[in-house]
Amino acid sequence: MDKLETYIRKAYLESSRGERKGDKWEEVETIKNYILNSKKVAIATNNINKFRIIKDTLIEKVYKDRDVDIFKVDIPTEVADLTRLPALSKGLIAVDTTDAHLVIARGRLGVPGSGSILLIMDGKGRILSGSISPPSVIHKRSIEDTVREELLEALRRIGI
Amino acid sequence: MDKLETYIRKAYLESSRGERKGDKWEEVETIKNYILNSKKVAIATNNINKFRIIKDTLIEKVYKDRDVDIFKVDIPTEVADLTRLPALSKGLIAVDTTDAHLVIARGRLGVPGSGSILLIMDGKGRILSGSISPPSVIHKRSIEDTVREELLEALRRIGI
Repeated sequence: MDKLETYIRKAYLESSRGERKGDKWEEVETIKNYILNSKKVAIATNNINKFRIIKDTLIEKVYKDRDVDIFKVDIPTEVADLTRLPALSKGLIAVDTTDAHLVIARGRLGVPGSGSILLIMDGKGRILSGSISPPSVIHKRSIEDTVREELLEALRRIGI
Repeated sequence: MDKLETYIRKAYLESSRGERKGDKWEEVETIKNYILNSKKVAIATNNINKFRIIKDTLIEKVYKDRDVDIFKVDIPTEVADLTRLPALSKGLIAVDTTDAHLVIARGRLGVPGSGSILLIMDGKGRILSGSISPPSVIHKRSIEDTVREELLEALRRIGI
């Protein structure tokens, strides 16, 4: 049994009994270790620049010289953008079509104009972390800087 | 026809033709106006302190002295926390059980330990904006400050 499942089950029982008090240190640590110990990472994007930035940032900040397979999954953005949660849809397509242990998906948060969200998901499609950026017409930063900052923020907020 | 629907349909057509180029200024403006013109706002929380902070911040920053009905919807957190997207589940419960034009939902982002997300949704449950905070065991700020900052950030990123 994966440690993640153990903590999710514990938290479910706490919630169902009305005894849940919020996130625990050991839960955050479990998420962190899941990410750090991943061997296969799918990046759900069909944009080669976004892929390279995410891959380079993961190697620089997380995996360093460890042997981790980081690959790109071409997701037809046109399809994901017709759903209510485009970024999540992209991530689930990556989960369902690869054997990745970890998935990084980045796309629209909600309706057109709602800006973007980056999600870090596990191999079953559960959300481990994420971060949100303003709509590109508002922030005016380069897409490279934005994507890198989103990934760093999604890692930082769980202590990586 | 609501302007929001018009822009969503336009964006859908662009996406399905593979011609979509990212968020547009008029889409962000449409979201902004939808929020500013809402008359009934449901806040999906069973915590009276969180409700008050969100309500006060909305009055202070968005609705000022306009006549807007801002009310609390008691959502059994225990139930939402057994779903994969607890904050979204809370928001959808508020959409399905009230006639609110706008819903503010705040809850867990994903698995236990993943921290929280605040979502601004329309009366049909579509996501208009949002913001993400680190897990409480990491940031150590008061829940009041965190919730207020999340709401301000979710508004600021779309220009409110």
